[in-house]
Amino acid sequence: MESTPSRNVVALAGGVGGAKLAQGLARALPPGALTVVVNTADDFDLYGLRICPDLDTVLYTLGGLADPTQGWGIAGDTTNTLEGIARYGLDPWFKLGDRDFATHILRTERLRSGAPLSAIMAELAVALGVSARVLPMSDDPVATIVETAEGDLAFQDYFVARRQQDDVTGVRFAEITSARPAPGVLQALAAAQTIVICPSNPFVSVAPILAVPGLRGAFERSAAVKIAVSPIVGGAAIKGPAAKMLASLGHRVDAAGVAALYSGSIDGFVLDEQDATLASAVESLGMAALVTRTVMGGPEDRARLAGETLAWAAGFPARAGSAG
Amino acid sequence: MESTPSRNVVALAGGVGGAKLAQGLARALPPGALTVVVNTADDFDLYGLRICPDLDTVLYTLGGLADPTQGWGIAGDTTNTLEGIARYGLDPWFKLGDRDFATHILRTERLRSGAPLSAIMAELAVALGVSARVLPMSDDPVATIVETAEGDLAFQDYFVARRQQDDVTGVRFAEITSARPAPGVLQALAAAQTIVICPSNPFVSVAPILAVPGLRGAFERSAAVKIAVSPIVGGAAIKGPAAKMLASLGHRVDAAGVAALYSGSIDGFVLDEQDATLASAVESLGMAALVTRTVMGGPEDRARLAGETLAWAAGFPARAGSAG
Repeated sequence: MESTPSRNVVALAGGVGGAKLAQGLARALPPGALTVVVNTADDFDLYGLRICPDLDTVLYTLGGLADPTQGWGIAGDTTNTLEGIARYGLDPWFKLGDRDFATHILRTERLRSGAPLSAIMAELAVALGVSARVLPMSDDPVATIVETAEGDLAFQDYFVARRQQDDVTGVRFAEITSARPAPGVLQALAAAQTIVICPSNPFVSVAPILAVPGLRGAFERSAAVKIAVSPIVGGAAIKGPAAKMLASLGHRVDAAGVAALYSGSIDGFVLDEQDATLASAVESLGMAALVTRTVMGGPEDRARLAGETLAWAAGFPARAGSAG
Repeated sequence: MESTPSRNVVALAGGVGGAKLAQGLARALPPGALTVVVNTADDFDLYGLRICPDLDTVLYTLGGLADPTQGWGIAGDTTNTLEGIARYGLDPWFKLGDRDFATHILRTERLRSGAPLSAIMAELAVALGVSARVLPMSDDPVATIVETAEGDLAFQDYFVARRQQDDVTGVRFAEITSARPAPGVLQALAAAQTIVICPSNPFVSVAPILAVPGLRGAFERSAAVKIAVSPIVGGAAIKGPAAKMLASLGHRVDAAGVAALYSGSIDGFVLDEQDATLASAVESLGMAALVTRTVMGGPEDRARLAGETLAWAAGFPARAGSAG
């Protein structure tokens, strides 16, 4: 039986790469069809404000506000608030724009009033005209701890302050055992026809999402066709430390190394045309391989990759799911 | 005996007018001689941040950052954070600049960590190179309530949102009975040779300071020469609703009307040369009168008025104070 294109799609996303593909999926799908489940283990407090880098990158990208060059932050933003903070003698080590501060200020106010993060992000998304559902993986705080030879590092300390220079020997997620999936996450996974693991870092973007208690089970039980898109092209990460982490954690440093991490959990893996020779290695892991151009430029390019991925997923044989 | 110029000077100040004279005093005095006690009854919470308009106006003015045209806010500031907030659908009714937000963010963080407002403002003042002591009247929150025909209004609602259009029938200060003078305020009053009531609104800037329990007593017991500078020139307020309030609260609407409010508490009153004919009316209230140019332009002008006021105060006969 020829499948029709997916109606309910869930994307699991980290920051910039995830946001780009999520935008492509939002363009390729009818309104209401897309739910993006976003990593929150990078979230942290700065100057008393709650910062959610991945959620905001997804929000700004879907809202059409994202800085097109750096991928995060708001296009054309200024940094006068941060300069004001620096004038008071604080180190402005984490770049926050002035328009961006509005998000952190309002989110923090709402969190302090007791609103759950998922409800707050839904309000912000509506205000920005985002029709996709953007869900944090959890409303409960989880914090990625990066283990290195220099000791344990808070994620943003490793990622921004120390510029990913440290060799990562392990990753763990503080408070993950008490985290619950945000409202709607398990239901979205159960109802999905397609689940796309975005081209995000498998260790610090995708792994924490799947580590939320109950979430991996819902992912595995879902009858959806599950596709991952490689964040590694030509043996290097498009952005961030994924390649360096693959090496220091003992994996092969290429798209097939990422595919191996998802082996047994996904049906298909999308890899870049530069890595066409790796297709058979991917297929030997027990999954299908799609070779196409995965390096995303502007919105049209993102929609093209999303469309190809969805069309490919729709061609997989239908499968009986477990209890939804 | 000819007095020497005052060594310890305390200024009681509200916002823009108070800040201008405080800057003049800081220029006219040696470092460490000036303590500015600032009204905090206008303070309020906005977007989860603690806003202290008068303290910040004094801080920015003494730090040389204040917008020279409007008197409040930071020169050359942008409003992108506020525009970001408006994009989320909130009314940006209270103007906050991007550099200005840095103050509110850091203050709020420190307040939430348990630091007293006086300690926070001291830290911010040091960072901005302000050598005068800037003290809030109290570390405890006090809120001016403006009574009008339309009912009770929160101060900023009356002052900013409703543009001072309502006739004020009364003013009261919520939580004033439990407020304690900030550390250093009573000592500064006791040690002062001169106390200057700045050209600030007598009802909503000066009155709340003196209404903090213990503060009026310390003011009255102080052996300092006490001088007030008129905020009313030519029957109108330099800025704000002081003249309108004088009328609606049943006082004469001129400099002598202000002097009458301080009658019995001060030794001298400084009024503008435009109001020279009111000098005898002021003197009939049992205080000396100094006629000079009180409308302040730039920093030199402020220093001139401050210098004249201090020189005049130094000529008053020395007085035995009560127990300091």
